[in-house]
Amino acid sequence: MLHGGEIYENANIQYDFSVSINPLGLPEKAVRRLRETVPLLTRYPDQSCGALRKALQRSTGVPAHQILCGNGASELIEAAVRGLGARSILLTAPSFSGYLHAAGAAGAEVRFHKLRREEDFVLTDRYFDDLAEGPDMAILCSPANPVGNRIDPGRLRRIAQFCGEKKIWLMVDECFLGFLADGEETTMRRLLTDPEGGGRLLVLDAFTKRYAMPGIRLGYLMARDPSVLAAIHAQQPEWSVSVPAQVAGVAALEEDRSYMERARALIASERRRMSDAIEALGLRVFPGEANYIFFSSETELQGPLLKRGILIRRCDNYRGLEKGDYRAAVLRPEENDILLGAMAEILRGKEPADG
Amino acid sequence: MLHGGEIYENANIQYDFSVSINPLGLPEKAVRRLRETVPLLTRYPDQSCGALRKALQRSTGVPAHQILCGNGASELIEAAVRGLGARSILLTAPSFSGYLHAAGAAGAEVRFHKLRREEDFVLTDRYFDDLAEGPDMAILCSPANPVGNRIDPGRLRRIAQFCGEKKIWLMVDECFLGFLADGEETTMRRLLTDPEGGGRLLVLDAFTKRYAMPGIRLGYLMARDPSVLAAIHAQQPEWSVSVPAQVAGVAALEEDRSYMERARALIASERRRMSDAIEALGLRVFPGEANYIFFSSETELQGPLLKRGILIRRCDNYRGLEKGDYRAAVLRPEENDILLGAMAEILRGKEPADG
Repeated sequence: MLHGGEIYENANIQYDFSVSINPLGLPEKAVRRLRETVPLLTRYPDQSCGALRKALQRSTGVPAHQILCGNGASELIEAAVRGLGARSILLTAPSFSGYLHAAGAAGAEVRFHKLRREEDFVLTDRYFDDLAEGPDMAILCSPANPVGNRIDPGRLRRIAQFCGEKKIWLMVDECFLGFLADGEETTMRRLLTDPEGGGRLLVLDAFTKRYAMPGIRLGYLMARDPSVLAAIHAQQPEWSVSVPAQVAGVAALEEDRSYMERARALIASERRRMSDAIEALGLRVFPGEANYIFFSSETELQGPLLKRGILIRRCDNYRGLEKGDYRAAVLRPEENDILLGAMAEILRGKEPADG
Repeated sequence: MLHGGEIYENANIQYDFSVSINPLGLPEKAVRRLRETVPLLTRYPDQSCGALRKALQRSTGVPAHQILCGNGASELIEAAVRGLGARSILLTAPSFSGYLHAAGAAGAEVRFHKLRREEDFVLTDRYFDDLAEGPDMAILCSPANPVGNRIDPGRLRRIAQFCGEKKIWLMVDECFLGFLADGEETTMRRLLTDPEGGGRLLVLDAFTKRYAMPGIRLGYLMARDPSVLAAIHAQQPEWSVSVPAQVAGVAALEEDRSYMERARALIASERRRMSDAIEALGLRVFPGEANYIFFSSETELQGPLLKRGILIRRCDNYRGLEKGDYRAAVLRPEENDILLGAMAEILRGKEPADG
């Protein structure tokens, strides 16, 4: 049994829908720049990630001194839990397993806010009841992983305000938000430069999904107060962000506009098409907006798909989810056709053509 | 004032003697393989570093399940302090600043064993007195950084045995040992496969210096008991070792033999030549065997060298060292000539030719 991502143990996987990255692949400029940079790996990385943070400032509008880079978002989550001394953390169930890993590594107590299947796993105002219990930190992801639904932007701002008043660190993970048409208008990082708010807010983002570079490990964390970032930075290894990561990051940001416009257009149309097709197969597709689709099937899908060289994400190991819950990435049309065709075959009880 | 490594803030540095990496540069196979691999960065790294650990097993003789890879040795030091719950750590003064950083990040108490200038900073049996106080962990580096002298192999084995009896975790950092002619014969990792010893021993090594790839972040930790490594691994981020690091590591190990033989021969002859030349300038050179030279000068050298585009490491910010202590890497003969020529000019009171 696989959950997803096990491409190194399975040589026959041709189509990996189990991880949710940009279907356009690496930005061309990043590929070119990385090839040229190989001989420069004889230098230590810039510990301050100076050029990268300047490029991020241009791209995000958040000043460079309010940005901290890390060896993937996952390193920054752990460093934040430790650096801010969070002893209790409120997570939603389901949510990305990395939050639990970070809390566990730091020995923090984890509390769960249970999202309800009958409410399509949407975050509601019931969340304030759990916040009122006063955890040291709360972590939210919008769009959520693995369900893909977005937290209502107005509600999320009210949550940030509440956390500011109650002195709860609120980390908002926006690593899939860049794929949404109005992601730029609704990002929580706006609050970090607004004099009225964001004192307890941390906004997390990564190059991983957005620029299809999970192999390179690069994430960044934004906060209002640079001293908060300094406390988190003290928990990172001394040279945590590699030269390839810094080079690829700068190049990706320079290429950003047309690349991301194409990715957003592709995902929007393909998401609709895949979602409709999966529903037409008689499965329950949950509402969402991310670059992946979350659905339930009474027929076991992962094993039969794997026989056809296709990997999707089983979600029954997420707390709050169950057997039959799956996540599949939105990839290129021809790849999505292969997944949809295979699912149709399996649900009709057909063996693989060459099986 | 600079200490070393500040190449990103100083565009005029042409010769960097402040970091001590292999003067041959990256192994050619690693360069080639890295260039080819760029398009594959759209995959998450193998979390288990399977291929890399197998290659390390072939190269080190330590079984793959006794090896844990990390995002540079520095990540592994922090993870080990945390994963083994070390609340008190014995360091030597001087020693590599990364140990102090790791201890500080984990909130561990640090004790210092003071090495004596009048003893050429050699580790003696006085060390056992401090070990007898029972720290949770002791960290030693051989050859030592920044002095470059090696701990007597017999003494080091007695220390490992003592630590085993007293239940003190002993981390031996061998990241410069590969540059020594008899490094392979004296490595402490032999104890990890010897049924008689090594139960509390951790041996740390890195690709950084040996294969001239500090930009890529790759280190590894070896222990007898895989469950010890599992506890340390739980403190790392979920995907800590990037795809480029895994690819470059495997390629470097495949190229190992002739590349390292050439490096060792070059360093041995150049080290002798540089050491003699620096002594002939009237400076005190401390005995050592590493790919860098530690010396003292009453005349300030770093500023005047920097005017000539040359960076050496000031060592007065190491605990136990003082103003006038310097470290310079052994690089290629033509580069070493430039350093030696510039030092001779400065000590004769001459201005730079174009200054």
